Amino acid sequence: MSTFELHPDRFFDSDPVIRKYARNIFDSIVSLPINSPHGHVDPSIFVDNKPFENPTQLFITPDHYLFRMLYSHGIPMEALGIPSINGIRVEEDHRKIWKLFAENYFLFLGTPSGIWLDYEFSIVFGIKEKLNGSNAEKIYDEIDEKIKSPEFLPRRLFEKFRIEVLSTTDASTDTLENHKKIIESGWKGRIIPCFRPDAVTDLSNPLWKSNIEMLGKICGYEISSFKKFVLALEERRAFFKSLGCTSTDHGVFSPYTHELSITEAEKIFLRALNEDATNEDAKLFTAHMLMEMARMSIEDGLVMQIHPGSFRNHNPLIKANYGADKGADIPMQAEFTFNLKELLNKYGNNPNFTVIVFTLDESTYSRELAPLAGHYPALKLGPSWWFHDSVEGMTRFRQMVTETAGFYNTVGFNDDTRAFVSIPARHDLARRIDSNFLAGLVARHIISIDDAKKIAQDLTYNLVKKTYKL
Amino acid sequence: MSTFELHPDRFFDSDPVIRKYARNIFDSIVSLPINSPHGHVDPSIFVDNKPFENPTQLFITPDHYLFRMLYSHGIPMEALGIPSINGIRVEEDHRKIWKLFAENYFLFLGTPSGIWLDYEFSIVFGIKEKLNGSNAEKIYDEIDEKIKSPEFLPRRLFEKFRIEVLSTTDASTDTLENHKKIIESGWKGRIIPCFRPDAVTDLSNPLWKSNIEMLGKICGYEISSFKKFVLALEERRAFFKSLGCTSTDHGVFSPYTHELSITEAEKIFLRALNEDATNEDAKLFTAHMLMEMARMSIEDGLVMQIHPGSFRNHNPLIKANYGADKGADIPMQAEFTFNLKELLNKYGNNPNFTVIVFTLDESTYSRELAPLAGHYPALKLGPSWWFHDSVEGMTRFRQMVTETAGFYNTVGFNDDTRAFVSIPARHDLARRIDSNFLAGLVARHIISIDDAKKIAQDLTYNLVKKTYKL
Amino acid sequence: MSTFELHPDRFFDSDPVIRKYARNIFDSIVSLPINSPHGHVDPSIFVDNKPFENPTQLFITPDHYLFRMLYSHGIPMEALGIPSINGIRVEEDHRKIWKLFAENYFLFLGTPSGIWLDYEFSIVFGIKEKLNGSNAEKIYDEIDEKIKSPEFLPRRLFEKFRIEVLSTTDASTDTLENHKKIIESGWKGRIIPCFRPDAVTDLSNPLWKSNIEMLGKICGYEISSFKKFVLALEERRAFFKSLGCTSTDHGVFSPYTHELSITEAEKIFLRALNEDATNEDAKLFTAHMLMEMARMSIEDGLVMQIHPGSFRNHNPLIKANYGADKGADIPMQAEFTFNLKELLNKYGNNPNFTVIVFTLDESTYSRELAPLAGHYPALKLGPSWWFHDSVEGMTRFRQMVTETAGFYNTVGFNDDTRAFVSIPARHDLARRIDSNFLAGLVARHIISIDDAKKIAQDLTYNLVKKTYKL
Repeated sequence: MSTFELHPDRFFDSDPVIRKYARNIFDSIVSLPINSPHGHVDPSIFVDNKPFENPTQLFITPDHYLFRMLYSHGIPMEALGIPSINGIRVEEDHRKIWKLFAENYFLFLGTPSGIWLDYEFSIVFGIKEKLNGSNAEKIYDEIDEKIKSPEFLPRRLFEKFRIEVLSTTDASTDTLENHKKIIESGWKGRIIPCFRPDAVTDLSNPLWKSNIEMLGKICGYEISSFKKFVLALEERRAFFKSLGCTSTDHGVFSPYTHELSITEAEKIFLRALNEDATNEDAKLFTAHMLMEMARMSIEDGLVMQIHPGSFRNHNPLIKANYGADKGADIPMQAEFTFNLKELLNKYGNNPNFTVIVFTLDESTYSRELAPLAGHYPALKLGPSWWFHDSVEGMTRFRQMVTETAGFYNTVGFNDDTRAFVSIPARHDLARRIDSNFLAGLVARHIISIDDAKKIAQDLTYNLVKKTYKL
Repeated sequence: MSTFELHPDRFFDSDPVIRKYARNIFDSIVSLPINSPHGHVDPSIFVDNKPFENPTQLFITPDHYLFRMLYSHGIPMEALGIPSINGIRVEEDHRKIWKLFAENYFLFLGTPSGIWLDYEFSIVFGIKEKLNGSNAEKIYDEIDEKIKSPEFLPRRLFEKFRIEVLSTTDASTDTLENHKKIIESGWKGRIIPCFRPDAVTDLSNPLWKSNIEMLGKICGYEISSFKKFVLALEERRAFFKSLGCTSTDHGVFSPYTHELSITEAEKIFLRALNEDATNEDAKLFTAHMLMEMARMSIEDGLVMQIHPGSFRNHNPLIKANYGADKGADIPMQAEFTFNLKELLNKYGNNPNFTVIVFTLDESTYSRELAPLAGHYPALKLGPSWWFHDSVEGMTRFRQMVTETAGFYNTVGFNDDTRAFVSIPARHDLARRIDSNFLAGLVARHIISIDDAKKIAQDLTYNLVKKTYKL
Repeated sequence: MSTFELHPDRFFDSDPVIRKYARNIFDSIVSLPINSPHGHVDPSIFVDNKPFENPTQLFITPDHYLFRMLYSHGIPMEALGIPSINGIRVEEDHRKIWKLFAENYFLFLGTPSGIWLDYEFSIVFGIKEKLNGSNAEKIYDEIDEKIKSPEFLPRRLFEKFRIEVLSTTDASTDTLENHKKIIESGWKGRIIPCFRPDAVTDLSNPLWKSNIEMLGKICGYEISSFKKFVLALEERRAFFKSLGCTSTDHGVFSPYTHELSITEAEKIFLRALNEDATNEDAKLFTAHMLMEMARMSIEDGLVMQIHPGSFRNHNPLIKANYGADKGADIPMQAEFTFNLKELLNKYGNNPNFTVIVFTLDESTYSRELAPLAGHYPALKLGPSWWFHDSVEGMTRFRQMVTETAGFYNTVGFNDDTRAFVSIPARHDLARRIDSNFLAGLVARHIISIDDAKKIAQDLTYNLVKKTYKL
């Protein structure tokens, strides 16, 4: 039986000079609270504050990082209990799914998922063995017992994780009932919404028209024109803001920005209502809506985020059988110098505007994003995203961004997760990688240890609070 | 006179923690046999088993990695004895060529060619001095004497290198006489063919029509339609398989995949037979043939390889005077997310299909290939290829691929070489770089030393055997 | 009060093995003179040899690396005293500007600007404190006093910096009066011009026609045809050469090269004179002029440089208020395999031609540029440029270029600076990074320490002299 314990110096370079500095820097930030300004945790868990169902539904079923990898090795989605949307019978024995997962846990060696899970098992749940096929059931029982105890209820974990603010991500038509209930409950945990209107700004979405109808219902008037659409969005933003929202988010195919005349925008909008919109219409409309969103951000103060460049639902078989967000989103080439030009030219010099840009195309870090952020006051760079939220990925981000944009045009860490229990694991990793990166600068006499600690403090806590207005 | 000996810890980080682990891991795999599932060694050398001609023709004349670099410093191809295809008189004094090479050996400092040659001279031939202008003739004599001895005959070297399987790369019209003769000879060395039909699937090849005629002759019927063309390829694949072939290979300009209707395919094929095919026809035909090849792979079990993105024969002067494969192939931007979509959507979920993709565009590792391989069961990633088969190149491959695709969606090492004697050198380097990469993970407490050894074993031996069905 | 001194081992890896070798290598090149074959220092400072105005105008006002970063944090250009071109009132109190800069000096932590400034303050000016808001005035006074002393006059600094050759960059219409005066003065400092004809080869430049008129005036005949235009350029090149010029430079949007027929070229030229040229005309004309420039280089021996891929003046607000070169130039994707093909096919095999190519798109290093330079004799790679002239940037350049192109297809370091006092700082950093890179190869037993020292000598001194014909 193999026992394991997380090493206190994990992820730090083994060179003793760097390691000593990294430890020193990390120790100075380890106890800072967590601010999670962008993520996808379901707020309902904090309303009910019920125990999590079981280890399988806590760890595996909602986490496309995990079943993606298992699927890539020929393990069927149904064997992992991923709910089907078209009646395929899926495995319902959670212990059996857990066993299958445990037998294949070695696939995650060297991946951030492996790192996060090791943390969650070891630190959050106090499991003292590395998961494998043999100890699968035993560990299942241990976790299962714990999640049924008061110490592991969602609100209690939120507090134990020392989360100051947790932002969810919510459709423009969301009534934010959960957020309201949490506030009304008197519980002090700060769970705030983020306004993500993709479903009504993306004309290529097959559900666009019904989403618009839903928006109309919520607003109490028919969205019969572009003008009314804009009004509706402004109202929804105000509503979100009233419940603590400080940011918007835009998951776009391309970061292309372009302002249409009102007449053009109206024409395209009406074509879309008539289900006659073309691909070109959809492209232009998204480009125009990014301009509109920037304008609104300047007016209402919400911080704008752009997450471009993911080809969603690349595998139609998975989409048809299991729906969206099932590990089949694939990055593609991105371009920012031309695409963001119109937005930055019009709003990028405005002191009342903040736009945070993310990318899945690492070749844009040093080529486009760092130079843009190192010039335009409104533009800040989000941390390394999704596939790149990893030891090497976060290191490359700092290596390719810092020398051109400095540390202070970045915004701290986003955990961006659906997996609530992984939040402290992800922040632990991010803080360690930043500490190690800074330690490398100190070791090479590029910055002093005092400067490094100040920067670490800012990257971990101050920049995220300031940029996201938390 | 400078003497030199290869350092037992070469290529490992100098940090003592990493170096100790790297050594430990490498020691556990150093004596594993070599499986070479993709390469370009001429099988005839094992038929005749004659001594190699002389050091110059063994090392320099066939190796475009070497004369490419010399040419880039103004040394004419003719001075290096590269055979001309149009009557240019080339140097025939092999000692003179060797001297020229030796005088310029410093150009290879810091390159993989330099590393491989150092190994070949030192380990394979027992030369105890670093090659330079002064000792050129002496070393020529030493090598020349050795290659004339029985210990350095091709079959003996194959055995000394402990090669389990060596795959050649062969045109669809190849009669595989050499492979047959090797089998018939009773020698136990396993030399298998790989089916590479580029010459008949690429309509833009000026020799396409005569290649098709050759294919018809071999099959015994005229290839007068696309249908017959498909039949012919299926027959050739079966023939290759009967001689041990387990894989196909496709060297395409772009990895674009797209299925045509039979009618469209027939039309394009007939236009091509009439020498009327357009560039667009050629592009679509290649895209369709990749789909056809995937279908056939599912039927006959041959593993499919795609090597895209090399602009072949970039320098027409070299092509005209010396022919193809003369160091003037230049990589270009590649795109996989869109290009492979149709192939992966149709066949990528099929458990009977394996497609191994390579790239010369390293920006696609983390952006496209690792995410695709981390989802589609059929897709595996070939090792870092050609220009990137190097210390830094292999390290970047692991750094950019592992965190998203894991280790187990990669397929071990390909030496991909024409230079038979370089095979052990290349595998030595690859094993050392993987050992060092794994050691870095152990040193940072990301994986355990036991896990690292298990992974090293799999990367070196098990994954290549399993994926290539050896 | 914090004191600081530059560490003698700065920028070297902290690993003791690498550090020892790096120190050893660096010590062998530290006292080599500086050759600066490409830069933007104003030659007039050496004509008058007057003291620099004050610290603010010496360090901040001319350096877009600095005010770019300050601007990105919301500090207005006018507050930094950047001269406006349209009457905006700007700060004139140099001490106030200096204070603002000092208060925000932390923004440069981890950036090459921070590294260079630390060197300039510490080594050139002997300041023994790290600049900050509190000591700003004191340090201003110290520097101000020094620049007024004879030891800090431009010519004296040139000598103290041990500069052998300093190349400026000059428009084709420049009369080179300053260069003449320097020669006539009898001062031994070698300041040579570089021929940069962008203003007359780029038809999309709004001032193109008046630039052509200026060229006509200088040549003494009207530039009424393409033929005369070519003649004028040949004359200007000869004139530049007579004043010591050894190179030309071409700052192009894209490195696209394409030869037009004389008829086509004439037609486009006349359309441009008639102010009827299209965007396509401009693109083709630049492509053709690169071909013409290569032809001329073969004839007159001037070394050709191409600096492509910067989107100039991305922010129209800054352009309108402060003009060009104000920190708003943003890199974009570059492509070389196709774009340079025509130029390399026609001239790349010519032993009398040298073309040095730079890039801002690091993804092209290993994919396109190193393979091209590792084949074509005429092509050499300029060092990592602009945003990438940094610790990580220079390291990535060596890591991505060396294994394919070797060290000897690169050309040593370019400081490429407008900031005269930063020259020794930039060469110090470049030499240290190369030393450290080479030390890493020695530490991993890839090259010997003797080879490393030889290469360091060549990278620092011999290659730049040879390639730029200095």
